[in-house]
Amino acid sequence: MSTFKTVRGMRDFLPEEAKIMKYIENQARQTAELYGYREIITPVVESYELVAAKAGEEVRARMYAFEDLGGRKVALRPEFTASVARLVATTLRNEPKPLRLFCVGSLYRYDEPQKGRFREFWQSNFELMGSEKPEADAEILLLTNRFMKNVGLKNFTFKVGHVGVLRGILSQEGLAEETQNQAMQRMDKKLYDETLKIVKESGASEKGVQTLQKLINLRGASTTKVLKDMAEAVKDYPEAINAVKNLGEILNLTAEAGEKLNVKVEAGFARGLEYYTGIIFEVYVPELDIALAGGGRYNRLVELFGGEPTPAVGVAHGIDRIMLAIQEQKAKINVKETPPVMVIPVNENLNAEALKTAEMLRAENIPVELEVMGRKVSKALEDADRRCVRHVVIVGEKELKEGAVVLRDMQKKEQRSVKIGELAATLKRQAS
Amino acid sequence: MSTFKTVRGMRDFLPEEAKIMKYIENQARQTAELYGYREIITPVVESYELVAAKAGEEVRARMYAFEDLGGRKVALRPEFTASVARLVATTLRNEPKPLRLFCVGSLYRYDEPQKGRFREFWQSNFELMGSEKPEADAEILLLTNRFMKNVGLKNFTFKVGHVGVLRGILSQEGLAEETQNQAMQRMDKKLYDETLKIVKESGASEKGVQTLQKLINLRGASTTKVLKDMAEAVKDYPEAINAVKNLGEILNLTAEAGEKLNVKVEAGFARGLEYYTGIIFEVYVPELDIALAGGGRYNRLVELFGGEPTPAVGVAHGIDRIMLAIQEQKAKINVKETPPVMVIPVNENLNAEALKTAEMLRAENIPVELEVMGRKVSKALEDADRRCVRHVVIVGEKELKEGAVVLRDMQKKEQRSVKIGELAATLKRQAS
Repeated sequence: MSTFKTVRGMRDFLPEEAKIMKYIENQARQTAELYGYREIITPVVESYELVAAKAGEEVRARMYAFEDLGGRKVALRPEFTASVARLVATTLRNEPKPLRLFCVGSLYRYDEPQKGRFREFWQSNFELMGSEKPEADAEILLLTNRFMKNVGLKNFTFKVGHVGVLRGILSQEGLAEETQNQAMQRMDKKLYDETLKIVKESGASEKGVQTLQKLINLRGASTTKVLKDMAEAVKDYPEAINAVKNLGEILNLTAEAGEKLNVKVEAGFARGLEYYTGIIFEVYVPELDIALAGGGRYNRLVELFGGEPTPAVGVAHGIDRIMLAIQEQKAKINVKETPPVMVIPVNENLNAEALKTAEMLRAENIPVELEVMGRKVSKALEDADRRCVRHVVIVGEKELKEGAVVLRDMQKKEQRSVKIGELAATLKRQAS
Repeated sequence: MSTFKTVRGMRDFLPEEAKIMKYIENQARQTAELYGYREIITPVVESYELVAAKAGEEVRARMYAFEDLGGRKVALRPEFTASVARLVATTLRNEPKPLRLFCVGSLYRYDEPQKGRFREFWQSNFELMGSEKPEADAEILLLTNRFMKNVGLKNFTFKVGHVGVLRGILSQEGLAEETQNQAMQRMDKKLYDETLKIVKESGASEKGVQTLQKLINLRGASTTKVLKDMAEAVKDYPEAINAVKNLGEILNLTAEAGEKLNVKVEAGFARGLEYYTGIIFEVYVPELDIALAGGGRYNRLVELFGGEPTPAVGVAHGIDRIMLAIQEQKAKINVKETPPVMVIPVNENLNAEALKTAEMLRAENIPVELEVMGRKVSKALEDADRRCVRHVVIVGEKELKEGAVVLRDMQKKEQRSVKIGELAATLKRQAS
């Protein structure tokens, strides 16, 4: 049989990388705990109709969609929000609001593989359901900021926009939702000429097109100035004015909360997913040109899925992308590791005694690797050296008769006889 | 739009259940650490050819197989071992042995949904690669035993058999591997008459058929007796004799290691996966008729996948099934939880101050739920009561002027003013 490979776009994580992935996942879980988000688990396989509904043209075209053996049209989830909204629209529909929900897992999109972009990727996902207040949006920004800081990232920035500004103008200009979606998709891909062309051809006024043109060019690090310019640009569009105000309130709240977020407002910023209705944002580090996190407000999705009207805001953090950023920034991660003790029998007749010693230490929470290759002690010690094992326990006949084993310190190259009853305590002392 | 549901056979885990799932996963990870297994992550989407190769007829027929957008025939993994063997045959082929690898994640089989059996399920998986010694098999049994005990399960038993006994006879009787697989598949489903018919029609001797018939009836709690009877039954089949000896050695080692495993040897026990070559086992509790864990030795899989000859033994633990067993046995799980403190602003003008207070507490690792619904204090307090919140921080103008907030103990129905600078320390004192 030929050699097998991973399928194109898929990958394995070896122990060193898997450790970082699990570290990031744990930091996400701790963040969830700190902000009162409860974890749920939703399936990877969802109905196609559900995940396609508001995914947007581009994501929809890149889904892993197929029929299951019962002829159901299903898809591997391309994102979490649709699944969480489904749950809130159904099983959790009678839960009092606000509902804070957290989940973490793998997602699937048939994108062209490139640095930091794979067809299977991992996210931690936070959804705050039931509040339309700016403090809810601020919370999502702040928890993302804390999470990014806690995993050790530096110099990350929040790129921020507001879908309500753009949609406010397009609505007032009479564009149907489908046409708005098309325009927003082009906007997301920075195809501004195409965007303006669609808007123009859909019967928008000259003023509408000019307003959009102005917004596209409006961005910068001075939040106050950009917000002021935005307000000025949209002054004839009441819905858009409210959206700019809302954005200002959210950013003020985060600023007053003490944490200085590094924010860059871009008035012409759009995201691929179609369900957003309010603030949208993405997080970047200078070392990578892919977003490490993205989120925003979506006030109509739960209702669309048959639930009660439920304003909501959420964020997804790309775990494998954050790993890449950690590697690029050479950030130190704080993973406590107890290197295993190696237990080696002097000969085959002592296998059971070695196993017994190993189990006794494990019962005391001491990690142990047992020699299971039937090697001579000298060979097994060489292997221990290669693995950077610090302590080796050698089980030999002579010592056993006295109820003892040999404890060898590989670093100091010293060894001594230790009573079996004192072995665990001795090892714990040396580890601390 | 209509109400959406999970796809048949898929399910959501709500917070209470997700908590148990994550608890079990963590216990598995701690077991991995105790035994020196390093974690890897492999993709859910694998090449069909890889996962189909040795899955066995039944699993193969129930896979989620489809073509990706590039026309590749892929499948959602139905088990972990093929993926780990692929990795050891390729990327890790030059790693020194033994290799101890751990992984955890979701798997997919189109089975008929029933109690404890879903189409998406979760496993923790341990593979010990490179050793053919019985102490390696014993290690897999012992770590499974410890894991089951550590998650709080009681009265679980190991059902144990050895593929080498059955295959030894079938080989010596001249049956081709494909015919052996068919016989073993029937055996796995306890279709003993069909098994014997296949064997008979494939030209096996009368003695061969009688020997199999004897083995099928051989089982019991007295390991010594069953092993003795097995040895007697297969006395004319040298390979089978060795297999019985090997099984005896493994079980002796685990017994001598001190941990009393509850073992039931069944000479006619087979498992669906085709790659096993040695000991096989499953773990059961009296309350459920589905296996909580299953594993065994597979000495030829890595080689079959293009790697070096690599004897191996492994086990998969069903995380969602273990959750069900925990629920059935009403086992207590030990999850430390810090209930969040609720922070409530007295009015909208104090939103930023409330957010600031919340962020200050979170920076001190105190979980906080912020009031984000814009409710009056009385309403928010009712909500805190419903959520069994113990401590509430009320941010009001009067106290703020004195650099303080109100700390309310919901249980004692007492409240007092606390300086903001002392708030975190006060809350930590009360939590401990």
